[in-house]
Amino acid sequence: MQKTPALVAPSILAVLLAGAAPLPLAAQGARAEAEAVAAWVEANQRALVDELVELLSIPNVAADLENIRRNADWLVSALESRGVKARLLETGAQPMVYGELMTPGATTTILFYSHYDGQPVDPSAWVGHDPWVPVLRWGSLARGASIIPWPADGRYEDDWRIYARSASDDKSPIVMLLAALDALRAAGSSPTVNVKFLLEGDEEAGSAHIRRLIRDNRRLLAADLVIMADGPEHPSGRPTLVYGARGITSARVIVYGPERPLHSGHFGNWAPNPAQRLAALLASMKAPDGRVLIDGFYDDVVPLTAEETAAFRAIPADAPADYGFAEPEGGPGSLRLEATAAPSLNVRGMAAGWIGESVRTIVPDSAVAEIDLRLVPDIEPAEQVERLLRHIRGQGYHLVDASPTAEERAAHPYLARVISRESGYPGMRTPLAHPVAARVARAIAAYTGQEPVRIPMLGGSVPAVWFPVEAGIPVLLIPTVNPDNNQHSPNENLRLGNFFDGIVTFAGVLRTP
Amino acid sequence: MQKTPALVAPSILAVLLAGAAPLPLAAQGARAEAEAVAAWVEANQRALVDELVELLSIPNVAADLENIRRNADWLVSALESRGVKARLLETGAQPMVYGELMTPGATTTILFYSHYDGQPVDPSAWVGHDPWVPVLRWGSLARGASIIPWPADGRYEDDWRIYARSASDDKSPIVMLLAALDALRAAGSSPTVNVKFLLEGDEEAGSAHIRRLIRDNRRLLAADLVIMADGPEHPSGRPTLVYGARGITSARVIVYGPERPLHSGHFGNWAPNPAQRLAALLASMKAPDGRVLIDGFYDDVVPLTAEETAAFRAIPADAPADYGFAEPEGGPGSLRLEATAAPSLNVRGMAAGWIGESVRTIVPDSAVAEIDLRLVPDIEPAEQVERLLRHIRGQGYHLVDASPTAEERAAHPYLARVISRESGYPGMRTPLAHPVAARVARAIAAYTGQEPVRIPMLGGSVPAVWFPVEAGIPVLLIPTVNPDNNQHSPNENLRLGNFFDGIVTFAGVLRTP
Repeated sequence: MQKTPALVAPSILAVLLAGAAPLPLAAQGARAEAEAVAAWVEANQRALVDELVELLSIPNVAADLENIRRNADWLVSALESRGVKARLLETGAQPMVYGELMTPGATTTILFYSHYDGQPVDPSAWVGHDPWVPVLRWGSLARGASIIPWPADGRYEDDWRIYARSASDDKSPIVMLLAALDALRAAGSSPTVNVKFLLEGDEEAGSAHIRRLIRDNRRLLAADLVIMADGPEHPSGRPTLVYGARGITSARVIVYGPERPLHSGHFGNWAPNPAQRLAALLASMKAPDGRVLIDGFYDDVVPLTAEETAAFRAIPADAPADYGFAEPEGGPGSLRLEATAAPSLNVRGMAAGWIGESVRTIVPDSAVAEIDLRLVPDIEPAEQVERLLRHIRGQGYHLVDASPTAEERAAHPYLARVISRESGYPGMRTPLAHPVAARVARAIAAYTGQEPVRIPMLGGSVPAVWFPVEAGIPVLLIPTVNPDNNQHSPNENLRLGNFFDGIVTFAGVLRTP
Repeated sequence: MQKTPALVAPSILAVLLAGAAPLPLAAQGARAEAEAVAAWVEANQRALVDELVELLSIPNVAADLENIRRNADWLVSALESRGVKARLLETGAQPMVYGELMTPGATTTILFYSHYDGQPVDPSAWVGHDPWVPVLRWGSLARGASIIPWPADGRYEDDWRIYARSASDDKSPIVMLLAALDALRAAGSSPTVNVKFLLEGDEEAGSAHIRRLIRDNRRLLAADLVIMADGPEHPSGRPTLVYGARGITSARVIVYGPERPLHSGHFGNWAPNPAQRLAALLASMKAPDGRVLIDGFYDDVVPLTAEETAAFRAIPADAPADYGFAEPEGGPGSLRLEATAAPSLNVRGMAAGWIGESVRTIVPDSAVAEIDLRLVPDIEPAEQVERLLRHIRGQGYHLVDASPTAEERAAHPYLARVISRESGYPGMRTPLAHPVAARVARAIAAYTGQEPVRIPMLGGSVPAVWFPVEAGIPVLLIPTVNPDNNQHSPNENLRLGNFFDGIVTFAGVLRTP
């Protein structure tokens, strides 16, 4: 992503180290402490990066239970070395890591949530190294930056990047939090709030255990606010606060044609073509401007408040050209963050027959679309899937629950199957005016000297909703990593300037008055 | 394919050997000779099968030039041993085999075309043997028939099958023709027509040389009719005459979205989804009843004559349920052969993002559809592709000739690319009333005692068009092998009843009055 220079905030660290900006009196104490924190970060880059690289070197696909446990054990040790009482919470599969650091006299408790597992990898798509052998580049691979040696003097440029699975999503925020504790201590300070940690080991695999774990551990996890440390900061580079996130559910739609691929010469025009039919079916679901045409799709949407709409419009707009396209789906004026605060229907994958070198002159036997449905309050996942099913039936399809039998094939001209095994989870939104969230926002502003970007809702989905639903705790997301981090893709990376600034931001959160 | 018993004609050989059916006087001479031919085939099964097995044992993938030449040399010897003057026509790669057997006083010349190369193989998918080690089964592998020993007494059942690459496509028709010459001689007869042979060695690899070879050898190949001995007979089992074939061209359509896959949460509803757009684009091309909506798509179609339409409707209908679907694309009354005599637009492959186990929550960066366009007279391949391009532009797309540049991405909201490298070839149709073809049809009817199924046009494509285009010779296809022969697939096979009957059919052709 090319940052539009006018929008980009200066590095938090740079501003603090310059120590030049005039400050309102109330912020001067925080600022002096922040400058000490920044100086400590600047002086300890080598150790900070080393610790991150050590964690990134442990493979962390959720299905790899042995290595997942190595990650969890590493995290327990890392927390304990900071004086945090830490232990594993077993789930029967990937353990969660729990930690707590109580502050005498504190009346506010903040629960930090991150996840330590990462998306599965396709090593062949990683350029120049294994996903769990972190490397350093002098910039973004997308702009041609090559791998460079780890610096002998331990000094890192802000624009240098570490490439590794979970460099951004979501191991680095965990290391930022650990470093923030170290930095406060080095600055002669300490948290003003009680701090709890909950680090999940199967978020990328669907968070199978978190809902029950929250429900079963309400007392242990009790807090005034959950802070989710995940996701990319706003492209402006300013500290970013996100007050909600979309939920998600998904469906695999399979349209059936003949029972096996048929010669497109001898059968084309006679055997129904499932790829063509799937295309028509998908086209029936969405207008060219992106509006979903499924009946009831928007029925349960809680409209944005005037304050939330205003907050969206106060955020600098993203430029489509930065992502390689000319116009947003909703037209030239569509704002990314406001657009992604609505429910969506997204074709994330599609396949039929063969393409490219393997192409064959056939009528395919079936065609598949993988669809994800993003949700906003108060849409229930199961109900949204049911609306999709009704729409498909409304297009004339008979739906089967398994591969169709010969009898079903002979009886129904339009035959499809929808697989929606994962139940998904709803979206959530914390009011912008929530008092604890407001105190955190002020603490960050005072500490970093920058007014945070306040995003009422994130387009992405995090299972944040279970904290309010199961334990009554509101959630605030504080994303810190670079937006072009290739999250979920090959060549995931972390810009080091974001890493260092994130430490200061989290130190500020720990000092929430 | 399951034959509907009522439609299936008896074995030609069985009818002739029973010698029972009353005959019109004019056919009695032909019938007596056919009975002698049938008796010879019946008595010489061992030698006939042995010669076929010998040819099937020579590997014949076009790219394997050394073995291709072994096949060609074998064919020259086999032709010469029947008194056919034979030689190779060099193409620079796979040679063609040419042969001629002139009949004193004959005024009609028939040029037989077949190909001796076969589709590439995946040996691991062949059950129980190597593709070039022919085996005998007591029926169809698809119905569980096991491999049986070659019979010690040299007697074969009609339903037994030989499994080997090119058992059906297209070596056995060549051996049927050779055997037909032997059978006539044994019956004290001889061809009534001049006979030429042209046997191609790279048909399955795209027939790179045949157009030029026909053009460069017009005098050598001069004939009144080309008979292409290729493809499966009509499922009824009756002798089958095909008077035309569709041509083909193809196009790969790529619709572009963002320059790389984007997170469907953070970008879904804002970044344009190329899979969704491709779906809408494909849906715009074709009505639910299969009619192509591209402007001018049917403009150059030469309508079927009343005689051709009647011929289509006289053919027993195929049953959709035999192929695993309830209703043809054109509705319940649509006849396969009539439907596939129209030009088609077929989505043979489609892909975007990831599906199944690899599914990812992204907005794909592009979406691809592989389309084949079947052609009928007088549609020109390049013009049909041009109509497709115009349609895509008409849907608002800017078309690029290569991967789009950043400037093109920023300038055009709808961006696509169409790759149509192969020029393809047009379709062809010989009139049902063509006098030489009509004489051949009558000769087959008289010889076999069965009225041939007359198919005005085949849905599949064969490069037959170059004979009329380059040398002015009309083409008649005489397919003889079993429809369930697994042409182009693993476990290709030939039902021996079809082999024996085909010899009688071709003997009849050689005796065209």
